[in-house]
Amino acid sequence: MYDHFPISDHAKKMREKLLKFMDDHIYPSEKIYKQQVEEGDRWQPVPIMEELKAKGRESGLWNMFLTHDADKYKGAGLTNLEYGTLCEIMGRSSIGSEPFNCSAPDTGNMETIFMYGTEEHKAKWLKPLLDGEIRSCFAMTEPAVASSDATNIETRIVRDGDDYVINGTKWWSSGAMDPRCKIAILMGKTDPNAETHKQQSMILVPFDSPGVTVKRHLSVIGYDHAPHGHAEVEYKDVRVPVTNILLGEGRGFEIAQGRLGPGRIHHAMRSVGQAERALQMMCERGMERTAFGQRIAEMGVTKHWIAESRMEIEQARLLVMHAAYMMDTVGNKVARREIAMIKVVAANLVQRVVDRAIQVHGAQGVSQDTTLASSFANARTMRLVDGPDEVHRETIAKLELKQYRN
Amino acid sequence: MYDHFPISDHAKKMREKLLKFMDDHIYPSEKIYKQQVEEGDRWQPVPIMEELKAKGRESGLWNMFLTHDADKYKGAGLTNLEYGTLCEIMGRSSIGSEPFNCSAPDTGNMETIFMYGTEEHKAKWLKPLLDGEIRSCFAMTEPAVASSDATNIETRIVRDGDDYVINGTKWWSSGAMDPRCKIAILMGKTDPNAETHKQQSMILVPFDSPGVTVKRHLSVIGYDHAPHGHAEVEYKDVRVPVTNILLGEGRGFEIAQGRLGPGRIHHAMRSVGQAERALQMMCERGMERTAFGQRIAEMGVTKHWIAESRMEIEQARLLVMHAAYMMDTVGNKVARREIAMIKVVAANLVQRVVDRAIQVHGAQGVSQDTTLASSFANARTMRLVDGPDEVHRETIAKLELKQYRN
Amino acid sequence: MYDHFPISDHAKKMREKLLKFMDDHIYPSEKIYKQQVEEGDRWQPVPIMEELKAKGRESGLWNMFLTHDADKYKGAGLTNLEYGTLCEIMGRSSIGSEPFNCSAPDTGNMETIFMYGTEEHKAKWLKPLLDGEIRSCFAMTEPAVASSDATNIETRIVRDGDDYVINGTKWWSSGAMDPRCKIAILMGKTDPNAETHKQQSMILVPFDSPGVTVKRHLSVIGYDHAPHGHAEVEYKDVRVPVTNILLGEGRGFEIAQGRLGPGRIHHAMRSVGQAERALQMMCERGMERTAFGQRIAEMGVTKHWIAESRMEIEQARLLVMHAAYMMDTVGNKVARREIAMIKVVAANLVQRVVDRAIQVHGAQGVSQDTTLASSFANARTMRLVDGPDEVHRETIAKLELKQYRN
Amino acid sequence: MYDHFPISDHAKKMREKLLKFMDDHIYPSEKIYKQQVEEGDRWQPVPIMEELKAKGRESGLWNMFLTHDADKYKGAGLTNLEYGTLCEIMGRSSIGSEPFNCSAPDTGNMETIFMYGTEEHKAKWLKPLLDGEIRSCFAMTEPAVASSDATNIETRIVRDGDDYVINGTKWWSSGAMDPRCKIAILMGKTDPNAETHKQQSMILVPFDSPGVTVKRHLSVIGYDHAPHGHAEVEYKDVRVPVTNILLGEGRGFEIAQGRLGPGRIHHAMRSVGQAERALQMMCERGMERTAFGQRIAEMGVTKHWIAESRMEIEQARLLVMHAAYMMDTVGNKVARREIAMIKVVAANLVQRVVDRAIQVHGAQGVSQDTTLASSFANARTMRLVDGPDEVHRETIAKLELKQYRN
Repeated sequence: MYDHFPISDHAKKMREKLLKFMDDHIYPSEKIYKQQVEEGDRWQPVPIMEELKAKGRESGLWNMFLTHDADKYKGAGLTNLEYGTLCEIMGRSSIGSEPFNCSAPDTGNMETIFMYGTEEHKAKWLKPLLDGEIRSCFAMTEPAVASSDATNIETRIVRDGDDYVINGTKWWSSGAMDPRCKIAILMGKTDPNAETHKQQSMILVPFDSPGVTVKRHLSVIGYDHAPHGHAEVEYKDVRVPVTNILLGEGRGFEIAQGRLGPGRIHHAMRSVGQAERALQMMCERGMERTAFGQRIAEMGVTKHWIAESRMEIEQARLLVMHAAYMMDTVGNKVARREIAMIKVVAANLVQRVVDRAIQVHGAQGVSQDTTLASSFANARTMRLVDGPDEVHRETIAKLELKQYRN
Repeated sequence: MYDHFPISDHAKKMREKLLKFMDDHIYPSEKIYKQQVEEGDRWQPVPIMEELKAKGRESGLWNMFLTHDADKYKGAGLTNLEYGTLCEIMGRSSIGSEPFNCSAPDTGNMETIFMYGTEEHKAKWLKPLLDGEIRSCFAMTEPAVASSDATNIETRIVRDGDDYVINGTKWWSSGAMDPRCKIAILMGKTDPNAETHKQQSMILVPFDSPGVTVKRHLSVIGYDHAPHGHAEVEYKDVRVPVTNILLGEGRGFEIAQGRLGPGRIHHAMRSVGQAERALQMMCERGMERTAFGQRIAEMGVTKHWIAESRMEIEQARLLVMHAAYMMDTVGNKVARREIAMIKVVAANLVQRVVDRAIQVHGAQGVSQDTTLASSFANARTMRLVDGPDEVHRETIAKLELKQYRN
Repeated sequence: MYDHFPISDHAKKMREKLLKFMDDHIYPSEKIYKQQVEEGDRWQPVPIMEELKAKGRESGLWNMFLTHDADKYKGAGLTNLEYGTLCEIMGRSSIGSEPFNCSAPDTGNMETIFMYGTEEHKAKWLKPLLDGEIRSCFAMTEPAVASSDATNIETRIVRDGDDYVINGTKWWSSGAMDPRCKIAILMGKTDPNAETHKQQSMILVPFDSPGVTVKRHLSVIGYDHAPHGHAEVEYKDVRVPVTNILLGEGRGFEIAQGRLGPGRIHHAMRSVGQAERALQMMCERGMERTAFGQRIAEMGVTKHWIAESRMEIEQARLLVMHAAYMMDTVGNKVARREIAMIKVVAANLVQRVVDRAIQVHGAQGVSQDTTLASSFANARTMRLVDGPDEVHRETIAKLELKQYRN
Repeated sequence: MYDHFPISDHAKKMREKLLKFMDDHIYPSEKIYKQQVEEGDRWQPVPIMEELKAKGRESGLWNMFLTHDADKYKGAGLTNLEYGTLCEIMGRSSIGSEPFNCSAPDTGNMETIFMYGTEEHKAKWLKPLLDGEIRSCFAMTEPAVASSDATNIETRIVRDGDDYVINGTKWWSSGAMDPRCKIAILMGKTDPNAETHKQQSMILVPFDSPGVTVKRHLSVIGYDHAPHGHAEVEYKDVRVPVTNILLGEGRGFEIAQGRLGPGRIHHAMRSVGQAERALQMMCERGMERTAFGQRIAEMGVTKHWIAESRMEIEQARLLVMHAAYMMDTVGNKVARREIAMIKVVAANLVQRVVDRAIQVHGAQGVSQDTTLASSFANARTMRLVDGPDEVHRETIAKLELKQYRN
């Protein structure tokens, strides 16, 4: 059906394998996962996930996000488009990505180190991340300023001899609650006097450095997302060797830009997958339940919702696939309008479709009995993650208006 | 400003008193309440709330929901309109109603017993409820059927000698998780062969009756609403004396109708209050934070949201006040269109306004640091509570079309 | 039903009289009016309208817009609220206002001369306008600039001896196509060097002055609104005596503000009336037609539309009545937020309700066979008339944010 | 950018040629066309269009809609996808299709005769239609019934010897006002007793047959679309030879289905083109005009609209191209969900984008000075043409739910 897009046979086979893995292992584990989180120490690894990761490692689907032809890191050699179609499938379950070491923010962090790190960085941090031995976080957003405008970021990175000394507070460091989180990629100001887009740098901060304190976890519309979690982290006189800087001082924005594209595709396609699942649940539930002598699915308004959802999903999927295709063929820079668009479209899509699915489920839809309630909370959050919708709409509008300036 | 609506001086004085109480006691207690719930046994009474209730009892605002001129129960003698305006104020805080013994579902249950109970019922259950000594739940919705169509309800109430024997499972029994919950008003089928709207009855079920089992709590988009909570409750061969029935067999629908109106006003006005608070937070945060060289509140899109929110709030408030006025002057039956309308309008209002406020707050808006995240979850739920929006839209449309039938 | 609002018996009687007049004379004339416009010289008075005006004059409803207690002008002495409720009724028909000399822009112009004109102005222009002998236009908007920002207005009014000399081009001068249009109230710049809000003045321009040229008529989404029409008018070296200025130089904005309030109430209430009529047509048509074995009115989506329309109409009506009440009790200045709100709410209301009504009518809905198509075009225009929605949203937001500044 | 879709070099060259033709001939003729219609006899051929057609004939772009490889009819041999991309370009102008003999309903009628007609039909009617010598109409919709459900159609086609005798009234016969309209394809009931979908037939009715009377033209939100027009046509005892029937009695629905797909692609892609043009106008105007010290295009809300429009256009275009691709590769039947989706999506797209463009233009946007007002009227109509949106949403929902039935 989508065969106008170039998908290799290799990718198609991975897709088949992934679909089977989802059916055989992921979906049946969802309830168990939830239960184990509820019953155990919320902030420790979850047994069923460790089992799934073991299976994922054997499946040949491990690290498939690593699209680069990096033989020694055993990436899957997929294009953004190809991997995107797999993200949709993984995205259907909230536990669908981690079994393949494909969950955010690790994927983005691994890509960042792969692209911008030294061989030493790779040996020390990329290797164990790819092996799933450690986890990582990305330390950008700050509580004290509107971080949607990254020039507002205030954390200081000050050179002192062979070290950089870091001071500041970051929050929404996703994954930082996990005891296995060992490395942060942190963005901060090295030179407040440089021109605006040269002030910030990115640096690798070992998470067990003295002065790094996880202050608390942040919840997301009532969910703590344990054991992964989102943390507020204080960096107080944290010292790291100068070699930990990525690319060099003042290149934070450059890295942020380079890092963006693939992550957007992943997020957006996972959202499409989440929306597909919500639509499926809407139909199933609607066919099961009867009110006022009619199946809920066959009431006029429900049919209207189903149709709207189908139309929105199809359009969003095509848009994301098209954006991925453009990234693959003309590069992230030319495709930046497309990358901005999918951010807005996918997050709002899933919010709307899940909202309708909840309505069809009635009160069950907001309870812990289905995945809809947490999807709804996630969707709300996706409209803020990586910058609120409005920032991306600004970008799209600016690119549009550019052609009319002269 | 709203002085075309008849509000007595007595009510105006209560309003002043309430406003002061909110400022003096309620708002400053919000964080403490949250903390005490987090830190203590979630399902036990919260100390700060007990203090607030003590103050509420002294304040002369206790039980002000009891609009009826029932001297011996010391109701406030307010009209629906007058009490409605107080609900808006209490609704601004999620802990704003309980200090005055004005929180759902207790208010609805007390009204039900007041209107339909015998003197014995009143002595045994209404008295301690009004005194805030015990709490109650309302057992209507069932997990196995689409309860938006109440004729679907399957719980059986079967006469056996001087007892009724009850079998069935209810869920979303709000307040049933609280250890002080001592009485349920339960709706169930006494006669499956009667005509559709005569099959159901309402009966008082002491919550410590053998056979009553709280199976689990239900969460609402990630929130457990402890210590109040929403429970799934099994009734297995539960025996209650025949005198516990309200009004008589087959009169469940009649009571359900009578109970509805005031509760809708309360819910709707609390929603208006919640929306007002969200708008206030949107403005405050927007004035504080700067991005891309501009205060967020002064960006074009934010101003658009502020204006939309203001227009929606004003319209919704007028609609609810008007509905309350009609209930007071022409009665619930004539006002049933208005009562259906406010249900839909208020729930959707608060969803939209809170959504915008979250967007202005950025990631903080979905965290535990403000009341917005829980308001968002509540709002989503309000579109399902007391029947999904769609059921009420049907009612409104039917009443509209009635005039064109002949 | 709305009896919490103060409506005098006098106004109630006028309402009864008006309702009867609509049934007896207006509705039955709608088709005839349309036909006479089609068949005759479009830009000449329409016979049936002249008959209706004769009846209107006799009815005691003539000039009822003139709310001021101006005995000698025989105003109806109605409050804004009272007259507003009559506007809703007149608004149900596109030919409902003119028979009572209550159509825009004449009402606004008469009020302006009444409030700000000299006795001489009144004798010369107000008298024949009130008698329905002549008509008028309001010359504000200009084709060359964004007139939503009135400081952009460029027409010059230059003193030369005992005359002012006017040069500029105005458009959207509604009513100026009518051969009976004898007077324009024109806004233009007397002093480009004054502070921004003191540069503009308003002046009376006899429409037969040398140099006044009607260049062409403007259509509104395909409608020419003959014989009334909207004109582009050139003013080239037009001389008027200095006494024609209203209030004095530099007071244009002051008059514009004063003129605004009542007109907004009229427009908004007429929009509510138009929406009511569209809802009525939606129900009637929906009950008549059958598709796929079901009455269109009883399909789920149609019922959803009917309910939404009812809820939106009720809210909008309450908002407009409330705004009128505030104007009557606390004055236009305090009520300026309310006046801005009804502008946005009413125009968008009628657009949405008419849109749904068209959809229920199918292709007939866009044809000349019903009033829906022209209502749809009008509604689209109302979102621009008196400044686009966005300008009013800005005002509302600014007033909201004001309280947070300090 | 869209090169994942298969577009031949031949099609790419036609595209280049078409783009140049639009710039050289079509856009510069728009105002002239409007003027000539206004000034001349509205219902006669428009001189500039005849000139454009002469140029179109020479350009090698004549009849490019005829996708079939029918050598003797000199079709362009384009796929639905390829022709679709050309429709987008032609759709940017309301006079963009006719110069190439590519305007509705002629294209659909020619395809119908090509696919279902006999050689005699082709010689008599297809030939002169392809040569642009005559024009045609499609007589389906009826004023007396809800024709969205085609089984409601009541026109009778009764066999009488070697003739069929036709009685009924059709409306919305587009093109029937043109004096060159010589042939109607009419749908009517041959056998009221057959099973529902076998009752209707399609038949060729020479438009000069005795008993065919054009009763009046129908306007579309104020536009008469002269000289093309939409007519109400009475068929009173109209006799045509039995050989004029297409395929045979009872096969009307079958033909209607077969005819549908390509027309939807054409309409939808033209809508995308119209939306692109509206977005372009929105940007241009927004960059030109200033209010409150800021370019309108750079106000927050305008940028929001530009971004939304861009996102919606991109998604819709991809959806339509994808649907065309599916029609080309798996056929209309498998693609029927996609065909239903583009109908809804494209019509609503253009309504929204044009609405925003109007708002940015202010009052000019509703006047005759730009193409926006007529686009707005068209867009409203497109939501009804070929069945209202709701019918197509029903189809989409039914196809979705099909998989959940068992």
